[in-house]
Amino acid sequence: MKRCLLFITLIVIVTCLANDMFAGDPSGKETYSDSIQGLKFSVNFAWILMSAFLVFNMQVGFVFLGAGFVQKKNTLNYGTMSFMDFCAGAIIFWLFGFALMFGGSQLAPGLTNGNKFIGYSGFLLIGDSYDVHISALWLFQVMFASTASTIVTGAIAERCKFHAHVLNSIFLCGILYPVYGHWMWGYGWLETLPFGVGARDFAGSGVVHGVGGLIAFVAAWRVGPRYGKYNPDGSSNVIRGHNLLYIVIGTLILIFGWFGFNAGSTLAVTELRVSIIATNTFLAAAAGALTLLYISYFMTKTFGVSMACNGALAGCVAITASGAYVPHWAAIVIGAIGSALTCFSLDFIENKLKIDDPVGAISVHGVNGIWGLLAVGVFADGTYCEVRGLITGSGWQLLSQFIASITLIVWCLGMGFLFLSFLKRVIGLRDPISAEQKGLDLYEHGSGCYQ
Amino acid sequence: MKRCLLFITLIVIVTCLANDMFAGDPSGKETYSDSIQGLKFSVNFAWILMSAFLVFNMQVGFVFLGAGFVQKKNTLNYGTMSFMDFCAGAIIFWLFGFALMFGGSQLAPGLTNGNKFIGYSGFLLIGDSYDVHISALWLFQVMFASTASTIVTGAIAERCKFHAHVLNSIFLCGILYPVYGHWMWGYGWLETLPFGVGARDFAGSGVVHGVGGLIAFVAAWRVGPRYGKYNPDGSSNVIRGHNLLYIVIGTLILIFGWFGFNAGSTLAVTELRVSIIATNTFLAAAAGALTLLYISYFMTKTFGVSMACNGALAGCVAITASGAYVPHWAAIVIGAIGSALTCFSLDFIENKLKIDDPVGAISVHGVNGIWGLLAVGVFADGTYCEVRGLITGSGWQLLSQFIASITLIVWCLGMGFLFLSFLKRVIGLRDPISAEQKGLDLYEHGSGCYQ
Amino acid sequence: MKRCLLFITLIVIVTCLANDMFAGDPSGKETYSDSIQGLKFSVNFAWILMSAFLVFNMQVGFVFLGAGFVQKKNTLNYGTMSFMDFCAGAIIFWLFGFALMFGGSQLAPGLTNGNKFIGYSGFLLIGDSYDVHISALWLFQVMFASTASTIVTGAIAERCKFHAHVLNSIFLCGILYPVYGHWMWGYGWLETLPFGVGARDFAGSGVVHGVGGLIAFVAAWRVGPRYGKYNPDGSSNVIRGHNLLYIVIGTLILIFGWFGFNAGSTLAVTELRVSIIATNTFLAAAAGALTLLYISYFMTKTFGVSMACNGALAGCVAITASGAYVPHWAAIVIGAIGSALTCFSLDFIENKLKIDDPVGAISVHGVNGIWGLLAVGVFADGTYCEVRGLITGSGWQLLSQFIASITLIVWCLGMGFLFLSFLKRVIGLRDPISAEQKGLDLYEHGSGCYQ
Repeated sequence: MKRCLLFITLIVIVTCLANDMFAGDPSGKETYSDSIQGLKFSVNFAWILMSAFLVFNMQVGFVFLGAGFVQKKNTLNYGTMSFMDFCAGAIIFWLFGFALMFGGSQLAPGLTNGNKFIGYSGFLLIGDSYDVHISALWLFQVMFASTASTIVTGAIAERCKFHAHVLNSIFLCGILYPVYGHWMWGYGWLETLPFGVGARDFAGSGVVHGVGGLIAFVAAWRVGPRYGKYNPDGSSNVIRGHNLLYIVIGTLILIFGWFGFNAGSTLAVTELRVSIIATNTFLAAAAGALTLLYISYFMTKTFGVSMACNGALAGCVAITASGAYVPHWAAIVIGAIGSALTCFSLDFIENKLKIDDPVGAISVHGVNGIWGLLAVGVFADGTYCEVRGLITGSGWQLLSQFIASITLIVWCLGMGFLFLSFLKRVIGLRDPISAEQKGLDLYEHGSGCYQ
Repeated sequence: MKRCLLFITLIVIVTCLANDMFAGDPSGKETYSDSIQGLKFSVNFAWILMSAFLVFNMQVGFVFLGAGFVQKKNTLNYGTMSFMDFCAGAIIFWLFGFALMFGGSQLAPGLTNGNKFIGYSGFLLIGDSYDVHISALWLFQVMFASTASTIVTGAIAERCKFHAHVLNSIFLCGILYPVYGHWMWGYGWLETLPFGVGARDFAGSGVVHGVGGLIAFVAAWRVGPRYGKYNPDGSSNVIRGHNLLYIVIGTLILIFGWFGFNAGSTLAVTELRVSIIATNTFLAAAAGALTLLYISYFMTKTFGVSMACNGALAGCVAITASGAYVPHWAAIVIGAIGSALTCFSLDFIENKLKIDDPVGAISVHGVNGIWGLLAVGVFADGTYCEVRGLITGSGWQLLSQFIASITLIVWCLGMGFLFLSFLKRVIGLRDPISAEQKGLDLYEHGSGCYQ
Repeated sequence: MKRCLLFITLIVIVTCLANDMFAGDPSGKETYSDSIQGLKFSVNFAWILMSAFLVFNMQVGFVFLGAGFVQKKNTLNYGTMSFMDFCAGAIIFWLFGFALMFGGSQLAPGLTNGNKFIGYSGFLLIGDSYDVHISALWLFQVMFASTASTIVTGAIAERCKFHAHVLNSIFLCGILYPVYGHWMWGYGWLETLPFGVGARDFAGSGVVHGVGGLIAFVAAWRVGPRYGKYNPDGSSNVIRGHNLLYIVIGTLILIFGWFGFNAGSTLAVTELRVSIIATNTFLAAAAGALTLLYISYFMTKTFGVSMACNGALAGCVAITASGAYVPHWAAIVIGAIGSALTCFSLDFIENKLKIDDPVGAISVHGVNGIWGLLAVGVFADGTYCEVRGLITGSGWQLLSQFIASITLIVWCLGMGFLFLSFLKRVIGLRDPISAEQKGLDLYEHGSGCYQ
């Protein structure tokens, strides 16, 4: 607490001192003028900000989705974690995550310092970075960072220490996510690979969902399965979510936000391609939902709702990297394949790897994050940004995407393993079994969710 | 399954082949330029897309609303139907619904082929239709088609076969809705009637809500009342919804989406009339809610919440056709009248016609769809698009609106009856009574909603 | 009822007569042209309207938040009140509230008549006020008025007469809020104080949240504590909310809407400062949530979710007045201080003043409304609109803010006391104890919320 206060005081002092050195354009007066160029800024600001708000609203979707998947006794814990990792992650991203990620990207004036491996300008949004452009970019990007961290929440739900999760989120939003993000979006080495146009991850299948899903994988593994999930013979039990309607609602709200996530990632509505992107997002979601609905129907003769919802989300994740580069029919194919992959992955992770992932975050976000990256190299049709996949007869782009995927896996599994093992040793990852049995709501929050 | 796969494969092959014949502007580069005209496209794209996202979010509202009205044991079934009819409808609308509806409308470059009765360009959004304009229009319109199909879900809730509903949605989004929609919005014969300026249905009181509500009527009738709804003497029992708060929440979310539904229907924010339209939508909703709240109060001495909510929605439906053409005071009058009509209609349908409509979809959407169409002919004040109703002293517009209403009724009741009778004979519309008694969640989805 | 109908009829007649006298621009055709200026209108209309829709959606957040805080037996009552005060308030705001508030403000053509104490043009949005500019402004502003009235709902929940609350909302939206609002936003005497640039309340910490929170204070006091809240010895009992997850969801939805609330208050996205404002809003919310989360942790060793949520909202309220004028680090400080103030205030009001506020509306909105006003005078850095606070070395702005705060307190407590005492005497504020014990859902609405 004391250290924390000291730290905050320090920041305030430093920033106060820094305050009069700004050289950015904090009022927007120098950037805007009554001209074509000024209006272009305005309409793109409106687009970025509204998209950022939509992505923020995905947190509502994540709360519904996750709360639906967990047991009654852990509902509040899930909701709180999902909300608080977001707040903690945002402050860290403000302190330095953003600077590591976008320094040197040139995506806004002032983001000048950085190399192909790491960025270093934009700290605390002060000085040169107290600027309308940078704030717009920051707000959009912080929502992405927080999404990555919220994805992890689902996989470690119902048994993880509250504090361990918050620390993990801080690590994720402060180091792990920004560094990979810099490589892909901050003019880093993946973005500038010499194959095809360099690796491309349009709105973050890999950067956001891949990172989130793979850390979710490591975290779920290190924290261990929920009490009672596996029998002594290794077979698994179904632990049903306590409110399946929440899953449907959460999924719909997530798709709503995903429109901002994907179409907003142009950072400009003067790129009219946004309409293709939004439509692709929607088609992939619909195709994904239908695919898993019918797979579940042919397997169990009932219409599995949570399967259909995970299918829709899988479709969304899969199209996130490629939505800008592929035609509409390909969006449907990508969504359907992503959905089918999720089905196999859910089974493989639960029954073969014996890793317990209550909401299916690893399969939905991790597996489809990688599939999304690869899909760019397969289905991009060359109509936008010169990205050409296999269907245009060229395999070079796929090579870049493949390198990006391998890098993603190595980086996340490696760093995630190191950090989570460290965390496990120092403060422990897991609440006591007795608390788990009673429910984490009572243990961590002093109150059940429902009265 | 096999046929389905074959079909998908076929599409993929066809589309791949078609891929290099595109002549639209899929990147937006040819359409956009740094000029007044380019910016105009951009700001209107932003408007159409954000509006489409809001309309998508109405699905969240429909899930809450319907789930609130149904019994606990059918909650999940309602949510799943509402979500899945949407996905299935969207794919069909992509395949051919959109082409039938907007072919020949000239609403975007490439939509050239069609006559006054049917359109035939824009299939699969390929070839000429792989274009940023068409994708923007498609995304906005698919949300409308899906809304129409989701309306039906409420009326057949708690007893209808899952598959029968999905097939009905496919029929609705593929044929029934697009054809009437073409007549009204695709430069069809209703739009070009020689009375007044031709029939006008600004954002779809008739096209969307009328079609949805009237098919809901036929479907609720053909599927029959829920077990236990009517006593042997013909009197009806109240079957209470299981979560009335959901009804309030659903209503509010629907109004939120309705702003996009109505104000977005200009397809351009360079039409500054949008502010009048949005305000009218809001005033009609408020007036509708208050009207039914106080009607219920004077009838029962309690404040009926579900009545007030249906009143708000009735107001929204009623203003949907006319919101662009009428002044603000008229919006209040239209909303209040629509709300009162709903009150009578609810009673009439339940107790006279003995048709069981768990959520009141027929009264809210069907009756007000027709009232909305007529209201254009009464209250349009001539300030926008030259639409002049009775209050300006001319009755010609009302004649057009009347013809459109009659056409709507005949088309929907006729086609709906034929298709649903066919469906009833071939696969049956209704789950077994035993399943209905146990709850459709268990029967159709293998799990209750709440654990 | 008769009087009501008579009144409505009267309005209709008056407005019909007034109809052909309009001199505004109801179609937007005169305002818009294919030019820089025309596009500027369009993009700003899009911004205002989308922001208004987001603020509307805050009603969904308020329903979740409040419903989460109340007992099961009063859930429906809370939801209905929250929805209906909004509808009633909107109609009153249309009739005359808006005219009193913005008459003479010159914020749109036609709003010409008014002095420093009261406005008088814009009644019923007819005549000159049937104009696209005014409708856009009206829609945005009615959402604010309704927010103020909804804030009160939380403080009087679980015991107040439905009708008393509706009448109070009418008073609030018709007189109390517009008059103070006129002083601050309608070119009134506070806005034009000769100290600093005059009092500034950017998006309504004082005007909206201060007014709502202070009336909530008076109302909660006049209506008295819930049965069983206080023991005979004056100690208080905890009455737990019935669904704490709803509190998390409500908070997130409110923050989503708050982006529109604050960033939309520029009324123009051609003011690029919007990105700074939106970012400040988000940072204040995150800082507020973390502050109260950890305060609750150090006090109780559990992570209090409802505390964290109230902290987030407190941060949002506090930044509402100042978000446009302060740098990002100050937003974090303002949010954290606001959150800490809320913590002390919650305790003070419950245990010292013995006023029962089920959701904490007084502390969150009232206290932070005042803190927000003062924070402008402390942290404004002079980069926007020449507003300079203490950190720039000048105390004059703080003087203006202080006068605005005192005025706010005197006006709200004084008028609120008079009106609520009058209401208490004439129709009574409180439902009978027996009804309170059974639950207001049954008593006022004839049905429990959950079946």
